[in-house]
Amino acid sequence: MWGGRFSSGPAALMRAINSSIATDKRLWREDIAASRAHAAMLGAQGVISADDAAKIDGGLATIAAEYEAEGITEDPALEDIHGHVEARLTALIGAPAGRLHTARSRNDQVATDLKLWVRGAIDDVLAAIDGLEDALLTRAEEHAATVMPGFTHLQSGQPVTLGHHLLAYREMLVRDRSRFGDARRRLNENPLGAAALAGTGFAIDRAATAAALGFDAPTANSIDTVSDRDFIVDYLHAAALTAIHLSRLAEEIILWASQPFGFVHLPDAWSTGSSIMPNKRNPDAAELIRGHSARIVGDLVALLVLLKGLPLAYAKDLQDGTPPVFDAHDLLTVSLKAMAGMLAELTFDAAAMRAAAGAGHATATDLADWLVANADVPFREAHHIVGRAVTAAVASNVLLDQLDLADLQAIDPRIGKGALAAVSLDSSVAARTSAGGTAPDRVREAVRAARAQRSKQ
Amino acid sequence: MWGGRFSSGPAALMRAINSSIATDKRLWREDIAASRAHAAMLGAQGVISADDAAKIDGGLATIAAEYEAEGITEDPALEDIHGHVEARLTALIGAPAGRLHTARSRNDQVATDLKLWVRGAIDDVLAAIDGLEDALLTRAEEHAATVMPGFTHLQSGQPVTLGHHLLAYREMLVRDRSRFGDARRRLNENPLGAAALAGTGFAIDRAATAAALGFDAPTANSIDTVSDRDFIVDYLHAAALTAIHLSRLAEEIILWASQPFGFVHLPDAWSTGSSIMPNKRNPDAAELIRGHSARIVGDLVALLVLLKGLPLAYAKDLQDGTPPVFDAHDLLTVSLKAMAGMLAELTFDAAAMRAAAGAGHATATDLADWLVANADVPFREAHHIVGRAVTAAVASNVLLDQLDLADLQAIDPRIGKGALAAVSLDSSVAARTSAGGTAPDRVREAVRAARAQRSKQ
Amino acid sequence: MWGGRFSSGPAALMRAINSSIATDKRLWREDIAASRAHAAMLGAQGVISADDAAKIDGGLATIAAEYEAEGITEDPALEDIHGHVEARLTALIGAPAGRLHTARSRNDQVATDLKLWVRGAIDDVLAAIDGLEDALLTRAEEHAATVMPGFTHLQSGQPVTLGHHLLAYREMLVRDRSRFGDARRRLNENPLGAAALAGTGFAIDRAATAAALGFDAPTANSIDTVSDRDFIVDYLHAAALTAIHLSRLAEEIILWASQPFGFVHLPDAWSTGSSIMPNKRNPDAAELIRGHSARIVGDLVALLVLLKGLPLAYAKDLQDGTPPVFDAHDLLTVSLKAMAGMLAELTFDAAAMRAAAGAGHATATDLADWLVANADVPFREAHHIVGRAVTAAVASNVLLDQLDLADLQAIDPRIGKGALAAVSLDSSVAARTSAGGTAPDRVREAVRAARAQRSKQ
Amino acid sequence: MWGGRFSSGPAALMRAINSSIATDKRLWREDIAASRAHAAMLGAQGVISADDAAKIDGGLATIAAEYEAEGITEDPALEDIHGHVEARLTALIGAPAGRLHTARSRNDQVATDLKLWVRGAIDDVLAAIDGLEDALLTRAEEHAATVMPGFTHLQSGQPVTLGHHLLAYREMLVRDRSRFGDARRRLNENPLGAAALAGTGFAIDRAATAAALGFDAPTANSIDTVSDRDFIVDYLHAAALTAIHLSRLAEEIILWASQPFGFVHLPDAWSTGSSIMPNKRNPDAAELIRGHSARIVGDLVALLVLLKGLPLAYAKDLQDGTPPVFDAHDLLTVSLKAMAGMLAELTFDAAAMRAAAGAGHATATDLADWLVANADVPFREAHHIVGRAVTAAVASNVLLDQLDLADLQAIDPRIGKGALAAVSLDSSVAARTSAGGTAPDRVREAVRAARAQRSKQ
Repeated sequence: MWGGRFSSGPAALMRAINSSIATDKRLWREDIAASRAHAAMLGAQGVISADDAAKIDGGLATIAAEYEAEGITEDPALEDIHGHVEARLTALIGAPAGRLHTARSRNDQVATDLKLWVRGAIDDVLAAIDGLEDALLTRAEEHAATVMPGFTHLQSGQPVTLGHHLLAYREMLVRDRSRFGDARRRLNENPLGAAALAGTGFAIDRAATAAALGFDAPTANSIDTVSDRDFIVDYLHAAALTAIHLSRLAEEIILWASQPFGFVHLPDAWSTGSSIMPNKRNPDAAELIRGHSARIVGDLVALLVLLKGLPLAYAKDLQDGTPPVFDAHDLLTVSLKAMAGMLAELTFDAAAMRAAAGAGHATATDLADWLVANADVPFREAHHIVGRAVTAAVASNVLLDQLDLADLQAIDPRIGKGALAAVSLDSSVAARTSAGGTAPDRVREAVRAARAQRSKQ
Repeated sequence: MWGGRFSSGPAALMRAINSSIATDKRLWREDIAASRAHAAMLGAQGVISADDAAKIDGGLATIAAEYEAEGITEDPALEDIHGHVEARLTALIGAPAGRLHTARSRNDQVATDLKLWVRGAIDDVLAAIDGLEDALLTRAEEHAATVMPGFTHLQSGQPVTLGHHLLAYREMLVRDRSRFGDARRRLNENPLGAAALAGTGFAIDRAATAAALGFDAPTANSIDTVSDRDFIVDYLHAAALTAIHLSRLAEEIILWASQPFGFVHLPDAWSTGSSIMPNKRNPDAAELIRGHSARIVGDLVALLVLLKGLPLAYAKDLQDGTPPVFDAHDLLTVSLKAMAGMLAELTFDAAAMRAAAGAGHATATDLADWLVANADVPFREAHHIVGRAVTAAVASNVLLDQLDLADLQAIDPRIGKGALAAVSLDSSVAARTSAGGTAPDRVREAVRAARAQRSKQ
Repeated sequence: MWGGRFSSGPAALMRAINSSIATDKRLWREDIAASRAHAAMLGAQGVISADDAAKIDGGLATIAAEYEAEGITEDPALEDIHGHVEARLTALIGAPAGRLHTARSRNDQVATDLKLWVRGAIDDVLAAIDGLEDALLTRAEEHAATVMPGFTHLQSGQPVTLGHHLLAYREMLVRDRSRFGDARRRLNENPLGAAALAGTGFAIDRAATAAALGFDAPTANSIDTVSDRDFIVDYLHAAALTAIHLSRLAEEIILWASQPFGFVHLPDAWSTGSSIMPNKRNPDAAELIRGHSARIVGDLVALLVLLKGLPLAYAKDLQDGTPPVFDAHDLLTVSLKAMAGMLAELTFDAAAMRAAAGAGHATATDLADWLVANADVPFREAHHIVGRAVTAAVASNVLLDQLDLADLQAIDPRIGKGALAAVSLDSSVAARTSAGGTAPDRVREAVRAARAQRSKQ
Repeated sequence: MWGGRFSSGPAALMRAINSSIATDKRLWREDIAASRAHAAMLGAQGVISADDAAKIDGGLATIAAEYEAEGITEDPALEDIHGHVEARLTALIGAPAGRLHTARSRNDQVATDLKLWVRGAIDDVLAAIDGLEDALLTRAEEHAATVMPGFTHLQSGQPVTLGHHLLAYREMLVRDRSRFGDARRRLNENPLGAAALAGTGFAIDRAATAAALGFDAPTANSIDTVSDRDFIVDYLHAAALTAIHLSRLAEEIILWASQPFGFVHLPDAWSTGSSIMPNKRNPDAAELIRGHSARIVGDLVALLVLLKGLPLAYAKDLQDGTPPVFDAHDLLTVSLKAMAGMLAELTFDAAAMRAAAGAGHATATDLADWLVANADVPFREAHHIVGRAVTAAVASNVLLDQLDLADLQAIDPRIGKGALAAVSLDSSVAARTSAGGTAPDRVREAVRAARAQRSKQ
């Protein structure tokens, strides 16, 4: 592809470090699509003849069919996917193949391939996010009124509903979807025509290739175009944060499946056993989802380190930006799908959750709120009164809601009979009807709103 | 603030690790603003009396004036900024201060403070980006036709214009602005009212506090609200990528200021000397901008590691999410401003750039393009022909554009007289008029378009 | 310090980004120690007069006393700690101060300061590791025979002893100590005398300053010496891994303190409360230790990004390498000390641990082992037999060790009476006497060995 | 392997996320070696019969031969390399295969495999480091007296010798070797026998398997043993820092090969061309080495994030620790070898280096030193005098060493005739004979010492 100036070929080690076909063959669909768009445009603009354009298009269609059917035979001497396609095209159609590279460089070509691939990857992720959202909404609706402990600091704080807890993850997914959407919109400009770095003197039509490839417009500056991998970093950022969200949910499933919690039971289809301990049922999928998040963060870091301090324009370092995005995408999509599958099929133990919800005197805030609302006690004072009540309960080795009225009035006489009702689990969650609160009706409302929003997408 | 249940205070080491006032005092404006909005809403809703609401508001206004005038005296026993304000408010207005915390927790309070702070930080960054964009546009316009080497792989590839090169950074800033804008929009929901994690039974009006604080709406799920620090990660991602862009420009300024390049001269105001070498003039600002990018990446990583695997809802780990965003913001804003200042005041050596632009047979592509356009040679063949011409020039120890027509025709007789003109530096850059190309007219057009876009913001 | 060649001073923004005194004043002890060693050596070698050397030494001693008593008044115009000391020395002793910088540059000076500081930091960390090891050994000995669930995948796997579990962390600390020791040994070479980057023509004695400052030898290459920050990366690597170990222990303490586990109780001195929930007792120290690990990882990443692609020799970017190591060291030492304090003072609930240890049919492996040892069943077959027994127990809603002999023999007749004893918790842990195993005697032995090893350090 | 308790198999997605054979098949040699050692020990201890031990050993030898000859046919249902080997062994020898897993779990087995693999990887790296050191020593010796610019801040500071500059990288490699050596020593303890997490009741001999596998001793705590991946982090830290060193050298080669520098010429074997620009010769190998460092840093980060907050003992997350170390090792070894090859074969342009060495008034320090040594001027004053001289030279548009004595004496009359000699390039480098200095004799000495040290390894 570039031999004219060279009298000898690369050293074996040079070839080993330089060849990227083992990785970038994954871009073949995008590479061929971009070449077809480029050839058609060159033909329409009269830069090459209509006949040559047609031959190139036919040849590329043949290659696509071959790759689809048989895969790609890697030849390190051909370096990359561009080299493989060009060599095959030359074999198929001869001289006209040599005209395809008019007004084009591998620099704008690879940027185009990568943007098309990342755009498709985002669409895949968005679909997988929808799948997980569906699973969350289904389980949240089912458990809109299931009471569980609401933890802060992993200490029992206030009772909440399981549906509400699951919907917290739905909100994270909403942000993830927004973040991927932003990344998609920001990347959707056409690199083709930037050529090596400076643009070209041929009468190309970059708007035409943009339209053909679904880009919103051509990129604005050719030097930036071939130097830019921001769109990979944007993808990896969105992927890392989504993966972190999944890691938080995975952590909870692991906790919930542990014997001391016992909040969920994983079916055989989502459990694995031990090679030595016949009793084990392990939540491997959740652990791997949590683990995958680490590797996706590593992929993001790789890109940031890669770009740091790189002078313009294209540098070969950028080739190292491709494997991390492929890796992260595979890890993220399997994580999203496995989480959706596991979540849909696991069993929540509502009784165990309810039994745990009362631990830690979880309705103490309700008692303080009762004092504020019914006895005009300033909240800070009410907080101290209830703190003493909890201390009394601990001393008697009971829970706060097991104290009787006399016990409570001994702490503070303003505590009235109505307070006893306020500290039950069900009245506690039912009371929290503030916008975004945990009350069962709020949960059902939130599920409906989420579905309505999805149907409008 | 929480002593009722405790019979003894924290250990000295516990206090040392737990106190955050040294860091979060920086949030005092946001903390007081949020408390004033909360108190006004409680008053309007009748949760507290109008009189108490007024006293609280007056007290908070006094505290704000005190902090503005005298700063904050840190007391580790008061833990954090919320504790400091509450203690001072109690000292100023007595009992009503105890009603401020009704229907509120530090969990939603700190989320609100942080979101307000990050929103303000984004606005600061956007202004600093505008400043740097202005500097780039001014210098780009001035050097729309200044010819310099266009490098790929840091090898002379094709001549470009300095204006075009500078505008590549303007495109990065456009993406940075878009990324910060997305982050701003995504975060702009009101956490207040999520309370500890479950919402509240008091008749609060979260839309009212949202409006008072400039949020678009209340957040949708209380558990998510107190567990969420995505908005810090979004900020840090946008900051890291902006910093990486600055590191690339800084790297170029360092290269250009080196004696072998000699493309720029830094004035005294942007140079430092050596304690031992009397000859030195060092581009410290550029190096520190490059260095700062590393620390900002570290800050981003800190947040991702922090959030990984955290169960819901609030965990104290989140307190460790604040110092990195303060650190990154300070580093980023000084970097943006220093880069704008340095760029505005440095001198480009146009003669040195032009002298270097011809190195490396930089117009070889123009010769190949000439063969395609004028002799109907397929590009791939033209590329090989010119490769041989370059080899011949190297053998004669001259540059390609120093070969005469006879030399070139000895390589390939189809090379005509017109080709000689095509390989001059000025005709090379002038020819590249494709959209986004390096031609001086394109550069001037891009500067005008950029200014028009800015005026519409 | 370097004004000769400059006709005007730095821009305000240049000064703002360039001044490092706010950070590097922390190096004042090391800076003065190194200068005293350098001056004494210059005097001894006759490069400066004995009288000048004495004056310099006296002046530096005075400055040290001043800084000790009054701290350092920062003057951004003096840039860094070196500038501050030099300016003060000039004020104190006049002209001889101008001879201190003979055969020295800030480049080798700051490398020396930093190495001395990091060496001292390592010694601090080693002492803090010893403190935490002591706490682990004390609690491990106390609980050598306390039975708790041994988790893999956070599923109950086999019973273990708490002492054995705690000693797992002791092993991590042993590796941490080794890693810090390696870092200390590797850094302990003297940078002084590398001068700007090339060494010097003055007849200096680098071995003498090495000896005076406790270095093992001078560094071998002057260019490397001023470009090297590996020793900071080594420190940060050791710190990050130690912090990750602490985060694992912190995670366990958080789990153990949660109501569903209930394995530990944190005293008031190591708990905090909630501003809204009067019932809360939060394990903030453990959460902050876990959170701090994230920031320390961020600090490590900052250094790696910083150094990536930096050409030799000294670059100002290196100044950005100092804040992360200060930050990490503060976070690590408070984490180690807080963990030691918390661990020493918390209460283990042995009864709760024992009650949980039987969950999950935790002695299933013991039954399989019994079949192997007493009935010559191949382990893989024994594993399947016991798997079926567990399934039977689950079906009957009992634990494996609640099945009677008839139940078991119905699964496989080779299960004999002795098997019933093998599946008790105490016999299970007592049996695991293999080297490094969980048996109480092994734990006591390990504690003794650890103490013996410490006493030999 | 673990089916007894399960009534149905894993979901397809579960299998997809859980299967690791595509990655861990790379551990087959280590897995079989460890199994053979384990079986031999079980036989020697009488835990299994000698006959079974022999059959197992024979079967494993057969499998090793098969894998060597034919590779491994992956079956996702067999999960991992352990499952593949066990299934094949059962097919080959039947029932005795079921005894191999006595007193062993996949948890200690995979830890053993990984340690053996990482140990081997370290040995590979150490050999590759030796190879690069050889190349550096050869070129350094050859260019012991070649004068080049010594840069700080990428500004010409003082002349240095190329040999000295290259030896700076040799010092980095010495530290890298030390770091890998430490990692090797620290990991070299035998995990086998830790079993699932608690050790075992079978009479195993862990010292025997340690000896058979080349470990120094058994690990000390079974819970730590199966939870520990520190040895991977240590490897990745050493790899990341080595890669960062390579990135610094790669950056310099890229700079030196650029037209403005022109210090090196890369032969065809280490250059690549452009698909569009016929003139290009790109230093791709250097760029990829620089790029690879980013991915290795990403791999290190992945491991740190992975381990953060993981409770003991084994968690499936640890499976995600394997791909990053494989990735990093491949990238590092090809980088080391390519750098050695490229360095050995590139051409230094000594004339271009020498021509550049004088730029920037590079011998200004020599003039200041002359004033100190010959006119008893305090260094700080001398520095200012020379600063003014440089300013005068700049004003006259000449270099400092082009001023004549009268010019210099007009600046300061103490500048004598001898000063003129001091400012020549050759006398400057020859003068810097301090330990570790750049003088040619020092360089030759350093090369000799390095070779002597290597021969003693």
